[in-house]
Amino acid sequence: MLHLHHLANSRSFRIIWLLEELGVDYHLTCYERNKAYRAPDSLKKIHPLGHAPMLEVNDRVLIESGFIIEYLIKHYDTEKQFKPADDNETAWEAYTFWLHFAEASVMPLLVMRLVFTKVVDQSPMLIKPVSKSIRNQVEKSMISKSLDTILAMMEKHLQDNHWFAGAEFSAADIQMHLAVVGANAGAGLDSSKYANILNWLKRCEERDAFKRAEEKGGRLKF
Amino acid sequence: MLHLHHLANSRSFRIIWLLEELGVDYHLTCYERNKAYRAPDSLKKIHPLGHAPMLEVNDRVLIESGFIIEYLIKHYDTEKQFKPADDNETAWEAYTFWLHFAEASVMPLLVMRLVFTKVVDQSPMLIKPVSKSIRNQVEKSMISKSLDTILAMMEKHLQDNHWFAGAEFSAADIQMHLAVVGANAGAGLDSSKYANILNWLKRCEERDAFKRAEEKGGRLKF
Repeated sequence: MLHLHHLANSRSFRIIWLLEELGVDYHLTCYERNKAYRAPDSLKKIHPLGHAPMLEVNDRVLIESGFIIEYLIKHYDTEKQFKPADDNETAWEAYTFWLHFAEASVMPLLVMRLVFTKVVDQSPMLIKPVSKSIRNQVEKSMISKSLDTILAMMEKHLQDNHWFAGAEFSAADIQMHLAVVGANAGAGLDSSKYANILNWLKRCEERDAFKRAEEKGGRLKF
Repeated sequence: MLHLHHLANSRSFRIIWLLEELGVDYHLTCYERNKAYRAPDSLKKIHPLGHAPMLEVNDRVLIESGFIIEYLIKHYDTEKQFKPADDNETAWEAYTFWLHFAEASVMPLLVMRLVFTKVVDQSPMLIKPVSKSIRNQVEKSMISKSLDTILAMMEKHLQDNHWFAGAEFSAADIQMHLAVVGANAGAGLDSSKYANILNWLKRCEERDAFKRAEEKGGRLKF
């Protein structure tokens, strides 16, 4: 039996969603974030890194979204619905690219932005102007321009493709979803500039498996 | 003809190394970092994100280390030397896990550390104590404990396995190499605690293809 350890409002939402798409039986344990918005220490008892997702499979604990997705597809996607076949070159390339890109290139920028926001929030009054100025400097020099370029890449791709891997929904959409939700947090993406991304987001969230995942794991909120 | 755009002291070293392992013909263009230790703007003319590696393939530009590795293996690893077969489950899992983990979970911590080091270096004298205190807080709460846990995971894995995917060298070693070099920067890893990691590093760097990559792309220095 698969056993997913899910942290509220985190990367592990993806794995609930994929398990629901696959229609696999699994046991789910949900954890809340602590006051510092971190994973509770109880997750470290399951795996020392203490990050979600964690998927127990026959007394082993698998971590890392991209790997867990590939593992589940290899073993449970018996009808080959969620990953393009190797000989469908264009779709295989798109799937493989976005699967890596979501966590390696998009999420680090969003996490860096979150870290600096927390640093400013937690700074004592006297230090706040300095920590704000540091945040603004990093936001300007490292984060916002790269994110704008990345969003433009996504927008162009979703103008030409219904889903990230092409015509068919795949696990690349699941992997990218959190990155898009993160980029859409706060002021929200400009709907005149990012109409294709926002329409894709709507299509994702209209899927039955997505709705079941939300009922079980809670709504993502940033 | 493949054309690799390589930035000195960056992730694109991996792709030179893999191309040398594969024995493929390729054209190489090397770029130096600017004074702010960033990629030069000329790379943005090749791909708007401006990050290395960038691999031109028939007038298309591929980015993202994990994807480029998978692409090159799919098309050029004709003797199937650098990725375990799907039916070698243990090796396939290890390969897939470390291929994702390197960029999604290890590199973001090292990049965050580098960003905070640069912030402190570039702070005016009056602000330096505050920026140092912010750096120390993030280092303590976010970076060092996670890196210690990750290094312990690697050390245990390399105690039981000669290479990251198991008994055989694979592209997972290439993907992990930069992460280990980054973690070994500065004071260096404690050789009594991380003997297996350091021995693995030595084995990597003794490979002929690695030596050729260094001759062409320069030595990684952090």
